[in-house]
Amino acid sequence: MPINIEALGSKGTPRSWAWNSKDALLYALGVGAGMADPVGSELEFTTENTMGVDQKVLPTFGVLAGFNATGGKSAMSNAGTYDPRMLVHGEQGIRLYRQIPVEGEITLVDEITGIYDKGKGAVISTKAVATLKADDQPLFELTSSVFIVGEGGFGGDRGPADVSNKAPEREPDISVTYQTREDQALLYRLSGDRNPLHSDKKFSDVGGFPRPILHGLCTYGFTGRALLASLCDNDPARFKAMEGRFSSPVLPGETLTIRIWTGEGADGTAIFQTVGGDGRVVLNNGGFEFG
Amino acid sequence: MPINIEALGSKGTPRSWAWNSKDALLYALGVGAGMADPVGSELEFTTENTMGVDQKVLPTFGVLAGFNATGGKSAMSNAGTYDPRMLVHGEQGIRLYRQIPVEGEITLVDEITGIYDKGKGAVISTKAVATLKADDQPLFELTSSVFIVGEGGFGGDRGPADVSNKAPEREPDISVTYQTREDQALLYRLSGDRNPLHSDKKFSDVGGFPRPILHGLCTYGFTGRALLASLCDNDPARFKAMEGRFSSPVLPGETLTIRIWTGEGADGTAIFQTVGGDGRVVLNNGGFEFG
Repeated sequence: MPINIEALGSKGTPRSWAWNSKDALLYALGVGAGMADPVGSELEFTTENTMGVDQKVLPTFGVLAGFNATGGKSAMSNAGTYDPRMLVHGEQGIRLYRQIPVEGEITLVDEITGIYDKGKGAVISTKAVATLKADDQPLFELTSSVFIVGEGGFGGDRGPADVSNKAPEREPDISVTYQTREDQALLYRLSGDRNPLHSDKKFSDVGGFPRPILHGLCTYGFTGRALLASLCDNDPARFKAMEGRFSSPVLPGETLTIRIWTGEGADGTAIFQTVGGDGRVVLNNGGFEFG
Repeated sequence: MPINIEALGSKGTPRSWAWNSKDALLYALGVGAGMADPVGSELEFTTENTMGVDQKVLPTFGVLAGFNATGGKSAMSNAGTYDPRMLVHGEQGIRLYRQIPVEGEITLVDEITGIYDKGKGAVISTKAVATLKADDQPLFELTSSVFIVGEGGFGGDRGPADVSNKAPEREPDISVTYQTREDQALLYRLSGDRNPLHSDKKFSDVGGFPRPILHGLCTYGFTGRALLASLCDNDPARFKAMEGRFSSPVLPGETLTIRIWTGEGADGTAIFQTVGGDGRVVLNNGGFEFG
């Protein structure tokens, strides 16, 4: 059996990820910080030595851990056998327990929290807790789900129908548009995900894309910047949690418009979605919590 | 005496610099590779895993050694005492003995080859030889001169009048225009030179600049790409030597037009200059050798 239902609840072994100031700066540039206003509002994310400005780390930087952590094995390795090329990133969440320091090292342990049979494929959900090695206390938590095309039909639970963070019909309260660049993925990939789907046209041709597509987590990072700027006054300490569902590939060079609704839920929450240049939703069912 | 004429001919102690594939990719993006055509002609410099493409290193990557090498002292430390903020990069050359590998480590030893009294300031010239540690053979050589404002008048030699590589009056044989970006310096600085003159407006204001200026060596890298593409078919093995004189600061966001004349000297040589968006020369007296 390709997908192993018994893996539900199983954990991976501890993996490690260390980063430094340069990694944080490179990530910030990769998700577009400083592009619109290089000497302006985002210097705390793009420089480490600007007078009167302390370097800070974009909260979404933490999602890199899921990809970059090494030294152990992810719980996904318990989930059975499948063609990794058939794996599509479905959902991503991050919850910050506190600000990510400019440099540090975490231990990451993940767990399989859901295995669902969607017919055309399987969905596997994980939760990973990142513990800062310096003090052995949690730093952030990642939730993720992947869709594995062709691996459904094993008779499992279909899983919850998704109704969370549905975008209201009305116009958003806040709308932020960022321009991505044609070469955006060439820069973003230096933060760790070197999948040639994002840089090699021969490779992306096989997937039926007109050209290499942007990393979903790059779109996620642009979106996080918009939420951070719009609702947290660019203060990472106020950024509590962000989750969303990837609903369409983005081509580098597209604009990304982050549509934000407040007042729909409890105080300190917002709903968002990100749309591409043609208005289609690329990151949907976005939920955000801020302080 | 601030400038020590006795330092002429003195050497520094060996310094080391190691780099890897990611450093080379980051540098390439920092000097604009892939910007105009992300899935096109420069993938050998911007990616390491494109099918059928071997990663190569831009020849001008070597100039980073002068800034990034550590562990010993530069011969410049023999040259006397002066305010480092008064130091302006004057000239830069690089001569490649062979292609720079994708990863490696060099030992760099420099020597003071000239100390000149220009009245308003002092010029100090150095030559540095980079030896690849893997085989203990020379990899490249750097020549550099700096102008130290206010340190002239010590009664030294004025040095040779510069007449080398004078741009012909006629139109260039080849002209290549690249667009730099407003945030170009934020990316380029991650290759090593974090001088806030290139990122912090409060800092550049002190120098009388309208905003942070681009690194001279970033302009140099764009220029090297133009020479490599135009005269070497983007093959670093054919790039032998490049030298030029910085003649005006560049603001990020300017276009850079590299004007190239062939047929003025021996076969395999060219003269170039780089001009900014308003046509003023920013890198002058450029000499290039290619195979």
